[in-house]
This record gives sequence, structure tokens and C-alpha cells, in this order.
Amino acid sequence: MYGKNIETLKKENMNLADKIYIFDTTLRDGEQAPGVALTVDEKIQIAQKLDKLGVDKIEAGFPVSSNGERKAAKELNSLGLNATVLGLARSVQKDIDAVLDSGLDYIHTFIGTSPLHRDYKLKMSKEKVIETAVESVEYAKDHGLTVEFSAEDATRTEHDYLFDVYDAVVDAGADFLNVPDTVGVLIPVITKELITNLKERYTTPISVHFHNDFGLATANTLTAIECGADQAHVTVNGMGERTGNASLEELIVALHAAYNIDLNIDTTQLYSLSEFVGRITGIKMPVNKPIVGANAFAHESGIHVHGVLNNALTYEPISPELVGHSRRIVLGKHTGANAVKAKLEKYNIDLTEEQFQNVFDQIKALGDKGKTVTDDDLRAIAITEISSAKETPIKLEGLGILSGAIVSPTATVKLNINGKLKETSCTGVGPVDAAINAIRELIQDTMDIELEEYNLEAITGGTDALAEVFVISSDGEGNKSTGRATNDDVIMASILAVLDSINKILLMEKN
Amino acid sequence: MYGKNIETLKKENMNLADKIYIFDTTLRDGEQAPGVALTVDEKIQIAQKLDKLGVDKIEAGFPVSSNGERKAAKELNSLGLNATVLGLARSVQKDIDAVLDSGLDYIHTFIGTSPLHRDYKLKMSKEKVIETAVESVEYAKDHGLTVEFSAEDATRTEHDYLFDVYDAVVDAGADFLNVPDTVGVLIPVITKELITNLKERYTTPISVHFHNDFGLATANTLTAIECGADQAHVTVNGMGERTGNASLEELIVALHAAYNIDLNIDTTQLYSLSEFVGRITGIKMPVNKPIVGANAFAHESGIHVHGVLNNALTYEPISPELVGHSRRIVLGKHTGANAVKAKLEKYNIDLTEEQFQNVFDQIKALGDKGKTVTDDDLRAIAITEISSAKETPIKLEGLGILSGAIVSPTATVKLNINGKLKETSCTGVGPVDAAINAIRELIQDTMDIELEEYNLEAITGGTDALAEVFVISSDGEGNKSTGRATNDDVIMASILAVLDSINKILLMEKN
Repeated sequence: MYGKNIETLKKENMNLADKIYIFDTTLRDGEQAPGVALTVDEKIQIAQKLDKLGVDKIEAGFPVSSNGERKAAKELNSLGLNATVLGLARSVQKDIDAVLDSGLDYIHTFIGTSPLHRDYKLKMSKEKVIETAVESVEYAKDHGLTVEFSAEDATRTEHDYLFDVYDAVVDAGADFLNVPDTVGVLIPVITKELITNLKERYTTPISVHFHNDFGLATANTLTAIECGADQAHVTVNGMGERTGNASLEELIVALHAAYNIDLNIDTTQLYSLSEFVGRITGIKMPVNKPIVGANAFAHESGIHVHGVLNNALTYEPISPELVGHSRRIVLGKHTGANAVKAKLEKYNIDLTEEQFQNVFDQIKALGDKGKTVTDDDLRAIAITEISSAKETPIKLEGLGILSGAIVSPTATVKLNINGKLKETSCTGVGPVDAAINAIRELIQDTMDIELEEYNLEAITGGTDALAEVFVISSDGEGNKSTGRATNDDVIMASILAVLDSINKILLMEKN
Repeated sequence: MYGKNIETLKKENMNLADKIYIFDTTLRDGEQAPGVALTVDEKIQIAQKLDKLGVDKIEAGFPVSSNGERKAAKELNSLGLNATVLGLARSVQKDIDAVLDSGLDYIHTFIGTSPLHRDYKLKMSKEKVIETAVESVEYAKDHGLTVEFSAEDATRTEHDYLFDVYDAVVDAGADFLNVPDTVGVLIPVITKELITNLKERYTTPISVHFHNDFGLATANTLTAIECGADQAHVTVNGMGERTGNASLEELIVALHAAYNIDLNIDTTQLYSLSEFVGRITGIKMPVNKPIVGANAFAHESGIHVHGVLNNALTYEPISPELVGHSRRIVLGKHTGANAVKAKLEKYNIDLTEEQFQNVFDQIKALGDKGKTVTDDDLRAIAITEISSAKETPIKLEGLGILSGAIVSPTATVKLNINGKLKETSCTGVGPVDAAINAIRELIQDTMDIELEEYNLEAITGGTDALAEVFVISSDGEGNKSTGRATNDDVIMASILAVLDSINKILLMEKN
């Protein structure tokens, strides 16, 4: 860490709360992300993982909005989690009743306080907004709830009026004051002023809920914590309305690595949680997402790989194990010889200087075309290079597909296997499946092929666009290879990709 | 904006430079992102767009690393751009010579200064690092170059030693001092201290190059600018090593919207530039990427849509037009009746209260399954609802596919069109193409179908996994409809999806 010791810095300039609560709203604000919908079962699965991770509070949803939401709140509450389960409500009695109906003990209630929200959404005067907020807090308190109050759009609300609102709900008994940056306009220097002012004025705990429209949600949340904020709202993968909220994984790791602040969170579960939520919601994280992206600990360029092979910390801020992720050395256009040599050593493949140069050139050429070169690709390229017989053992000599609506799709495949012609036909659920079944039958004397992964790249354009198929096959004896093919016929691309992988395995076995 | 006027705040607490340079390194650090490779032509296209946008400097690449990189630097330099084109070099003579060979006038040269980089990568003493840095800066200055010097891993370098390094290169004539946060460990509060110290010590302009490992690159860059940094390194979409760099679009928009600082940048080009770079590099932005993600101005939940329909600013920090993006109202699980009514009005579709409820229920049901409901879907659902004949005009009655390696793939399709059986066969580049050709021929008396989009979702798993096909068809008379189908046979899924869209168009035409 830069110059001055962070511990000194903390003591001098920061005003950290004794206890910092992590309030996860993946199941509420996260689910409000356009296009996302979670079933009750999915909410339960995510809540259990969040609880295992160690968050303090889980916002289950918005009970008044549908029967499903009410059911989810009820079921989450009955799981006996360590985390407090809570529900959202507008400052409206029927919303609060829905939270009560769900059996929850904790409510998060809100009303818009900014001029825009008062004039265009609520059509209420300043006084009416305060009156409504107070009534709701009192109603919720009267029914025994712990009440977290949000002044929606707080960061675009007039300074003095915002204090009037919080003053009134504090008097009404609110237990937490939440500060939503509803449209994500905060910057750290203003966050500092706002949270410092609030902490000076109130003993009621201060919570922050920051959106990421300018990419500053995590930074603003960290700044709020420096100034004494008692609670941070976060979501897994930063999911939420528009560009989302402060991301759970970024906040936790920054607190751990840059502030030496460890909450009661098992960081090693962060990667798998992110991956799980991405899969369930269909909102996949990009390769360059901090902490959890596929490239977070990936290195390709010569200088970086050279450094990482000597000491990973030269080009990594934390170890990938800290978050349950893993390091990847990627081969491509920027790869240096060091990376390739290290990988060949790992696989015990000895090459002459000339052979190495040929392999290296092939990798650079694939990289120049923008292809990622996997470890299996490297192994196959190297093995092919040292193989005496460089010709492919299996060739496709003939193919017929019969498909339709009455009988099962049928494929007849003719292969040349080491110079011998063999032919058979099989059925399958579709023509590709039928053809792969036929290939499997034809080569069963040679090897016991298992298709571990079949990946047809999405095709967009016309029905005559090129289909790209990527497969991974194994022979049940530990040999494994990728195969790739591109063709304007999706069936042909699939068959050629499978044969490509089988040929690579056969060449490996020979050596 | 919150409370105190931002202009007051700026004058009181900030120390803004008179001129802030935007240094774009998409073509260098951006291209070092694992799996990314750009051809010379692609670099030219991106550079032209960056120049049109208005950035001050464009780092073309790392000339010593390959012939392609040298060629790219040369060609970019000869384009006559307004932006300064420059090249990267280690503090090594051959690297600097490669920049000179490319005909550039500006060099960005670097050497690792942190203990980790000195001990594990360079294996140099503190003194040797300074000596090497000074020699390189002098060599570059002697050859007439403008020199930007980077102390690599500056943020993990000993405070006093970092100053020794910068002192020495300033004496040697360096024109810009760059501060790389090589592994992204900075936080705003430390950025503030570091940049303030540097600005107090040097009159040489200070530049910052911040990585995004903890999601703080943009926040740290903004903080540096508040403290007087003269230049910011950025990349389009935040692309770069690991989780990337400060993102061009986030920085520019935050400066504009939160600081009232407008650089000489045409913000309305930001969205199209992001989209272009994403397409060329294959690194697509996630839906929730700030500024440029598909959801940046998308709204689904009832409360938000209600607010946005009254006044978009209630739930948007800036207008989408500012960055050349557009607003989307998404229909799904959280949709309220307001959003659906507004859309039906737009399409002049009148429904009775009962019909509306049926349409609304169908949309909620699709949303509950996690489906996004497009405007075309809504239109088709509504039209189907008011259509007197709710049965589909066209039904698939028979299908035969013949495919293989010798003749062209052939499809025979039998359709029931408004009760009349018709059959024909066609060839195509693949079996799907053949079947679609046959359908087109069969219905040509009824309508002139055009397949505007064909989208086969990626299939991962086995060859027997379900294929999901999504299409958009139009009839050449302005009617357009989506179609969807899922089947374990990719050909069948394609045909059913096309027929689904055709049936919806026919129902629209009837009404």
C-alpha cells in the first residue's frame, strides 16, 4: 500500500462505526433490474447462500406487489437464517400491511423527498410528504416492526428539507435512516460532506443505498463508511435498477484489502455466489467485472505473464483464492515465450527449439485472429508438432441426414478410420445428435468417446450465417481435447468439430 | 444536485488544472485485455472515432512487441488526426528505437519502481532503477521526443523513493509524470493525498493511469482531477489488463454531470463508440454497464415507469440523448398497468377493460418466467386478444429434411394455410435455410415474408440440449413480429419460430 500506513490513515482521518451492517438487496433492488425475475425457489436458494456468506440483512422483496413476492417473504422468513429478513413498503398502509402479513419483523419504508419526486410522482407538498412519512413510521412502530426509513432521491433533495424529513421520522421512532442516491449522481467529495453532516446530527444509525449510474457506487459507499455510515446496501454483481447498485463483492474486497476492515463475511464464497446469481438471473458478468469477472486474475501480455510467473503479486492486488476465484494464463496475440514454455513444462512436453518456434508461431497466429488459445489447444498443437504422422487418423467420407416430422432424425455417416472405410446409421433427438451417435458407434473399437461439452455459438443474422461449434471430448482415459469448426450448415459444423477433437486425442495417445 | 452548489464546492475544495488532457489507451492497455487482438485496420477505425470524439492523445500500441504494432503506430501517425499519437516503451533502448522507427513524436516510457517489481521482475536495486529510467528519458529527449514517464506500480512504491524517481526523471527532462495504479489498489482518500503531494512538489504535469480491480478506477481518477491532475488515462468500456482501466465514458459523463466540467468531447458519440469497440473486440458490455449498458436508461418496475412517464428525470440522472443512447420501457414481472397502457396507446390499440386484463396477465406470466417482452410481443398479444379468429392461420403439417455431403441440403415442407394444404421442397446452404426457403415459397401468395433477424441462442451442454430460436419477420408493409420456439431439434425450433412470427403478422393484418 502507498506510503503512509493505512492504519495510521484510518485513525487520523476516519470515523468508522463500531459495527458495519451489510444489507443485501439482491432479491429486491437486484430483481428490479429490467428483464430479471426470480421465482420463490430461486429467492430461497440465493438467500441461503447470502446467509452462508455472512450478510447481516436480506431484503426479500416488495410484498405488496404480488402474491409471489408475499410468499417469498414468508418462506425466507421461515428458513431460520442468521440474517434478518425484511421487506420493502411505500409509505402507504396497504404496503406496510403486506409486510406484516408476511410475518416479518423489519420493514424498509420509503417516500420520495426531492422536488422532482414530490412534484411529478407524488404530487404532494413538502409538508404532506413529511406527514405521510411520519404516519407510516408510526403505524409500523405501533405494529412492533423495526423500521428503516428511506428518503427516496435524498441526494437531489434540498439540504435543509432533507434534515426536516429525517428529524420528523427520528421523532416518530425510525430505527435506521437510509440515504438512497436513487439516480446515482453522488461523487465521493459530496458523499463525505453529506454523511459527515448526518452523523453529526443523529445518533440513529445511518445507512446508505447508492446507485451506479456514473460507476461510482462502490467508491461512494466506501467514502460513507469512512465517515461513519453504519450500514451499506449492496447487491450481488451490482445488479439493480438501470446500471445497478454498489456491488457486494467490490465493497467487501476493498474493505478487506485497502482498509484492513474485515466484516463477518466468508470472502472465499464471493466468486461462486456471483456465478450462481449470474446464471439464475441470466445477467452474466462481463470478463472485466472487478473481483469476479473471468479476467480478474487472467494474464496474457508478455510483461505481465513474466512478472506473474515470478511472483503473482507483481500484477495482482489480491490472491484469487481470497475470493474463491482462480488464476489463468491466457495465450494469444500478446503472449511471450515464457508463458508458453511454462505451460509446456507443466504438461511434460519436450520440444526442440525449432518445434517450439513452430508451436509459438501457431499460437500467435491464432491470437492475431482474436482467438483465445486454451491449455488443451496448446497441448494438441504441440503434440501434433512432434507427432511423426501429422495426417488426421479419421476423415469424414460421407454424410446423409434424414429428418422430419414423422420418424426420428436419422444420420448415416461414413468415416475413413486409419485407411479403413466404415459406415453406419443412427437416430437421435435431432440431426446433430443422430450424427454424433453414429460417429460414436463407428469409432467404438478405437476409442470410447465422451462429449464433455458441446457449445454452439449464438447465430445472429440470417439462416445462412456461419455456425461456429466448439466441443470438448475425452476418451475416458484422461485424454481430453477441444475441437472447433465453422460451417454454414450447423450439422456439418458440429460433426467436423467433434472429428477435430477426436483426431487430436488419437494423436495424443500415439505420443 | 445535493445541498451546496457544486460551483461553490469546486472553488472551495478543489484545485482543478487549467487544461485536463484525456489520454486514451484503448489501443494499448485496452488491447492487452486477455483474449483481445486488434488488426491494424481495426486500430485505424477506432482511432478515427476517438479523434472525432475529441480525445487529446491516443496511445497506438507497443511498437517493439511486433511488426503489426509498429505498422499500426506508423499508420495511425500518418492519418493526420487532431489527437497526438504516441507509443509505449519499456526503459530499454530497443523499445525507444521502435517508437522512433514508427515516426512518432511522443513516447510513454515506464519502469517498475515498487519493491515487488524491482525484486521479482527487474531484479534491480533502487539505484539501478533510477539510473535506467534517467538514461531512457535522456535518450528519448535527445532524439526529440516528448516524454511521458510512468513509475510502474507507483501506488505500491515506497513514498520517499517514488519521489526520488520522479525527481530524477524531471531533471532528465520528462514532460509528463504518470502515476499508474498498476494493480488497482488505490482508494479515493489515498489518491487525494498522493496527488496533492505530487502537485505541491512538481510543476511538470501530473498524469494518472488507474486500474479497476476494486471497481474504483473512475472514482480515483475523478479524485485525482479534483486535486489538480493534468491528465487522465482512460479506455473505451474500461477495457484493459484484468478488470481494466478507468472507463472513458464514465469519466467524461461524471465530469459533465456531477462537476460541471466539459472537456472538448462530443458526449453524444459515447454510446456508438462503446458499441463499436465492444463488437470489434468481442468484449460485450453487460446490460448494467454505467452510461452505455442496454439497461442504463431502461425501466421495468411499476414505480419507476410511473415516475419516468411523468418526468424522465425522476429516475434518470441524465438524459439518454446526452450520450447518444435511448430510453427503454421494459415489460416484465415488475411492470405496472401504466406502462402497458402507455404502450398500447402509442400503437393505437383500444382494449376493453377485460381484454386489457387478459393482455396484462399474459405479460406478467411471461415476465414471471424471466422473459423480456418486447413492444412487438405486446402488440402481437394484444392483437391476438382482440382478434375474432384466435386460431393460427398457418400450421405445420409435414416436414422432411435431406442433408448430407454430396447434394445441397433439401427440405420438404407441408403447410395448412387457412385450411388449404400446400407442399413444396427447396434447397439451401443448410437444412434450416432450406426449410425457411420452402416456407417463403409456400406463403408467397399470402404475404412476402422477410426474415429480419434470426437468432439461435447459444447451446451449451449436450447435443440433445434444447435449442431456443428467436426471429423477427416483416411483411414489407410495415408489419413486423417476433417469433420464438424451443425444441431439442435445432431445425424444428427454427421452423416453428418463423411460423410463430408469420402467424402473428397475419393476425395483425386482419385487424
